[in-house]
Amino acid sequence: MTNPLPSGAVIGILGGGQLGRMLSVAAARLGYRSHIFEPGANPPAGHVADAVTTASYDDETALRAFADAVDVITYEFENIPTSALDLLESMRPIYPGREALRVSQDRMIEKTYLSELGLQVAPFAAVETADELSKAIDQIGVPGILKTRRFGYDGKGQARIMQAPDAETALADMQGAPAILEGFVNFSAEISVIAARSQDGQVSAFDPGENVHEGGILRTTTVPANVPARLRSDAVLIAAKILNALDYVGVMGVELFVTAQGLVVNEIAPRVHNSGHWTQNGCVVDQFEQHIRAVVGWPLGDGARHADVVMENLIGSDLERVSELASSGDCALHLYGKAEAKAGRKMGHVNRIKKS
Amino acid sequence: MTNPLPSGAVIGILGGGQLGRMLSVAAARLGYRSHIFEPGANPPAGHVADAVTTASYDDETALRAFADAVDVITYEFENIPTSALDLLESMRPIYPGREALRVSQDRMIEKTYLSELGLQVAPFAAVETADELSKAIDQIGVPGILKTRRFGYDGKGQARIMQAPDAETALADMQGAPAILEGFVNFSAEISVIAARSQDGQVSAFDPGENVHEGGILRTTTVPANVPARLRSDAVLIAAKILNALDYVGVMGVELFVTAQGLVVNEIAPRVHNSGHWTQNGCVVDQFEQHIRAVVGWPLGDGARHADVVMENLIGSDLERVSELASSGDCALHLYGKAEAKAGRKMGHVNRIKKS
Repeated sequence: MTNPLPSGAVIGILGGGQLGRMLSVAAARLGYRSHIFEPGANPPAGHVADAVTTASYDDETALRAFADAVDVITYEFENIPTSALDLLESMRPIYPGREALRVSQDRMIEKTYLSELGLQVAPFAAVETADELSKAIDQIGVPGILKTRRFGYDGKGQARIMQAPDAETALADMQGAPAILEGFVNFSAEISVIAARSQDGQVSAFDPGENVHEGGILRTTTVPANVPARLRSDAVLIAAKILNALDYVGVMGVELFVTAQGLVVNEIAPRVHNSGHWTQNGCVVDQFEQHIRAVVGWPLGDGARHADVVMENLIGSDLERVSELASSGDCALHLYGKAEAKAGRKMGHVNRIKKS
Repeated sequence: MTNPLPSGAVIGILGGGQLGRMLSVAAARLGYRSHIFEPGANPPAGHVADAVTTASYDDETALRAFADAVDVITYEFENIPTSALDLLESMRPIYPGREALRVSQDRMIEKTYLSELGLQVAPFAAVETADELSKAIDQIGVPGILKTRRFGYDGKGQARIMQAPDAETALADMQGAPAILEGFVNFSAEISVIAARSQDGQVSAFDPGENVHEGGILRTTTVPANVPARLRSDAVLIAAKILNALDYVGVMGVELFVTAQGLVVNEIAPRVHNSGHWTQNGCVVDQFEQHIRAVVGWPLGDGARHADVVMENLIGSDLERVSELASSGDCALHLYGKAEAKAGRKMGHVNRIKKS
């Protein structure tokens, strides 16, 4: 460890949801304190943080006070307003860095960046007008998905175009936001790699997991992924290539489609990732600790997998199943302490363990 | 689960050290919030708690406000003043209950209770005066250990009597406190069992670990303990007997000597226990979560061991080894965020993992 933050230093975390919550716990495990910045009241991360700032991302006074109070800054989501990042970065280091945010905040820039790295991505074209959409459909074909370039998550800001006449409705769904048309990828499975890179350039990846979505929301991740060993190793190499190209520091989630032509990169997330929650019960060092290690300047930890795991998200009324899950063996429950179980809201997850 | 506390309920924890810290994290993992009561400033548990009360145990106003703010009360140490317990218990349930505290707060009552349960303990006698000590030595023989009946921990309040003439110095070491003379037990190993009992009487024990002390402080715990399987099972049965007799709710640490005559109970601790820290990386559900489950009325979780573990305490300047430990494989580090690394102070621990 060349120059890690001293024990007791404060890690500022932008965003107070479940990812920030689990990052806070990991920070504490390594002897650090955390300070959450979150506009919403009573954030889940606040229950386990040393301090919380409740303010909006355009509150310069609050941002300055937050930066003053912390030693380093990280985040649990990528859609942080640029003006806030500019101010914070002038006062404290931010990991992962701005380049990773610039690339991942805009699907058009992301796809361009990844394909320039020589990686396979879905065919894509930028779309702002009906005319551009029409040309994009001619070029890419149907079916396809029209997505807002920025601020999409969990299937929000997306519209399918099964046939050319769907174009008008799809464009209306974008509500005037700059969009990207992506061609359909014919895939047999979606896998993801959670990879980490330290400040001195060490890269470590967790075993790829296989993801199943429902209604645009991740439902389960299963490790090991049921794909040939060669593809699992390809997936790790792809993740390492992206991390190195970005001179990345921290954990990244890389979603990949398994196709007859090999792996196609779906998207990258410059943060800990829902599909990496299995690491909490499958590895000695999980994705949250790996991220904190990178952010504070520690070497990465031992992310070898010691168990087969199926992670299942508990969404909305799934919370009613906690009583049953609490009694069943080999189940590790992780609840987020959210006040209200709304439909589609991630309330917790369960890691089901099998010894490997 | 008949009537567990609802998600988001607040668990009051008396004591803000590393045990309270790890209990807070476990509470959060199950969706609960924690509120620490601790006289000392900047307690380690405060970094991961939803709220902290800094006040002394004779501050009735603070105790009342604390009890008002929480749904249930537990503790990380057994030496809580009786007057504070009386007040708190009149307002909120306390788990583990008063009987466990009454028994474990006084070595004389503890030894008497355990032997009346039919369990083997070291020969013992109450001592307050030089005359009583002399009679006790006649009865029990030397060598022996004179200990204060109350408030001893990590070897504090103890004096060895190797030969009869040591008696005077040993008694002076008690500084007038009521004491107990315990005969030396000729043991080949010390093991401990971390056992839990739920509100509906379900009992579950973790695999016994083997403890090595240095200077009265726990240095390492190794699982599995290197003792015959029969003794491991005896140890679990002894722990279950004690928990059931006390109608206990929560986790208890039971320290046992391995002797030619079988297992001799050294002492019990009505709380999570340093020798149970290995469970954090050796089991799906660790001792801290098991304790919280019992306290909030959940069923106990799956405490089966999936790995061989050596837990080593990081004491005082051991903290300087963190850099080396951070880089070594199969090491799970747990640091407590304490401000100053004093000699003899527990600063963290490391769990070294071997797949079993």
